[in-house]
Amino acid sequence: MQIAVVGGGVCSPDVRKTAERLGRLLAEKGHILICGGLGGVMEAVCRGAKEAGGVTLGILPGRRSDANPYVGIAVATGMGHARNVIIIESCDAVIALPGEHGTLSEIALALKMKRPVISLGSWEISGTIKASDPDEALEILTRGFRHRI
Amino acid sequence: MQIAVVGGGVCSPDVRKTAERLGRLLAEKGHILICGGLGGVMEAVCRGAKEAGGVTLGILPGRRSDANPYVGIAVATGMGHARNVIIIESCDAVIALPGEHGTLSEIALALKMKRPVISLGSWEISGTIKASDPDEALEILTRGFRHRI
Amino acid sequence: MQIAVVGGGVCSPDVRKTAERLGRLLAEKGHILICGGLGGVMEAVCRGAKEAGGVTLGILPGRRSDANPYVGIAVATGMGHARNVIIIESCDAVIALPGEHGTLSEIALALKMKRPVISLGSWEISGTIKASDPDEALEILTRGFRHRI
Amino acid sequence: MQIAVVGGGVCSPDVRKTAERLGRLLAEKGHILICGGLGGVMEAVCRGAKEAGGVTLGILPGRRSDANPYVGIAVATGMGHARNVIIIESCDAVIALPGEHGTLSEIALALKMKRPVISLGSWEISGTIKASDPDEALEILTRGFRHRI
Repeated sequence: MQIAVVGGGVCSPDVRKTAERLGRLLAEKGHILICGGLGGVMEAVCRGAKEAGGVTLGILPGRRSDANPYVGIAVATGMGHARNVIIIESCDAVIALPGEHGTLSEIALALKMKRPVISLGSWEISGTIKASDPDEALEILTRGFRHRI
Repeated sequence: MQIAVVGGGVCSPDVRKTAERLGRLLAEKGHILICGGLGGVMEAVCRGAKEAGGVTLGILPGRRSDANPYVGIAVATGMGHARNVIIIESCDAVIALPGEHGTLSEIALALKMKRPVISLGSWEISGTIKASDPDEALEILTRGFRHRI
Repeated sequence: MQIAVVGGGVCSPDVRKTAERLGRLLAEKGHILICGGLGGVMEAVCRGAKEAGGVTLGILPGRRSDANPYVGIAVATGMGHARNVIIIESCDAVIALPGEHGTLSEIALALKMKRPVISLGSWEISGTIKASDPDEALEILTRGFRHRI
Repeated sequence: MQIAVVGGGVCSPDVRKTAERLGRLLAEKGHILICGGLGGVMEAVCRGAKEAGGVTLGILPGRRSDANPYVGIAVATGMGHARNVIIIESCDAVIALPGEHGTLSEIALALKMKRPVISLGSWEISGTIKASDPDEALEILTRGFRHRI
């Protein structure tokens, strides 16, 4: 599957560790990781996935040179926040880590666009599915969402 | 000012009445109304503004022919939900009426993009300013936001 | 009608004069002028239209503050060149003045999107209609395109 | 490098053969192929690249399900023609095969955005570099563009 991971452009060391583990698990399961390609949660999840040999796709607001070092394929949109719509349109499911209003906007957009959203310590609004750690998030992905939404 | 009004594509008669009054007030103050150009809240606010002689700008997800009858100037993007970014980028402030995840997504995006957001019966999240009716919303617009955000 | 005018972001004094006259004629006929909102041809055509009391809509690649002083309604996309698609999607016909590759790109896009394109001293490719001055361009608009394309 | 290939959504058997060979050569050199992900030239070049074990990235105007069968990673934009800007922004160089106004629009946009454009039987305008077959196109890519533009 193509799994989008969203979250803050800056993050705490704990969140970074969670994001890295999530990236590693996604790669090990053969999922393609999609994210915004910048820093914070995006960089940490790419790092985890890349170091585990996974495919990391960064959909950037600006230019390719803005990508973090663990983005394998950089799609540069030059479209600012509108790139969020592409991230969601391109994925089968979203996993949300902690973030601020930008992250909330992506979560709400994903729900509007009928993508399942797993909240891993992020905003919890009607329609999101809560996971307490990366392993549980993967377990939810694996068993499917139909009965949860 | 260019004021964006967001809210559900379908709405109750009460919300419609509120939106129409809001449109009328915006027009009377000489503001340009920006919205998504479709039905529900968007149509009601356009109707109120148009009938009061205001400028109504609809930024549509698809084609111009999708515009409600009270859109004076139709900007057709063909870009789906990405048009929300244009609505926010083009406005000085956002007034949010009731809506679902799409509306929440616009509110959060507006906060991310540093636009003041007045919630008129809509989602209230950290950063939004609550107004209890259209008149209060206009009063907040008029006296400015600097001390509120 | 909503008429898009495209052309170079810098232009010669002669082209500026042509663009200003074109803007004036469009406004006098009650057409809404759509353009990219920046300098050169865009500024001159807005100036002509604005001074004749017309509606001028600038669809900007960046922010509203980038608009030339004769843009009446500024739509800021933050989407760079992708804003060209919105200009074309929003118009009934395109009038092209001299410009470089950016202008050619808009002309070709307009033809792809089935908009009539009048070339007023601009690129002439299969499908464009040639006009020798602004008055002839308006005459072509007025009598319709169906038998020309 | 990330190389964009543009051309018609339908094409002749000869052009298809050229596109397939081009895809194969790009993959053999380790380039990432970027294209619009649909039929015609896009499908043929993806097929050639995919069968040679290459990475094929399709940046689609609509949904992922519109992708041709040889797209390895599908980026769905839901943005129609605006996706062309993303294709160009994301690439180091463009190779253009025969196509109509849509292809011309992409060539002109690429030149506007300062990407080298190799014309392989496609539109030749000021600024494009002519190649007579896929092997010559690859040779031009390999030796660099600086002295050609």
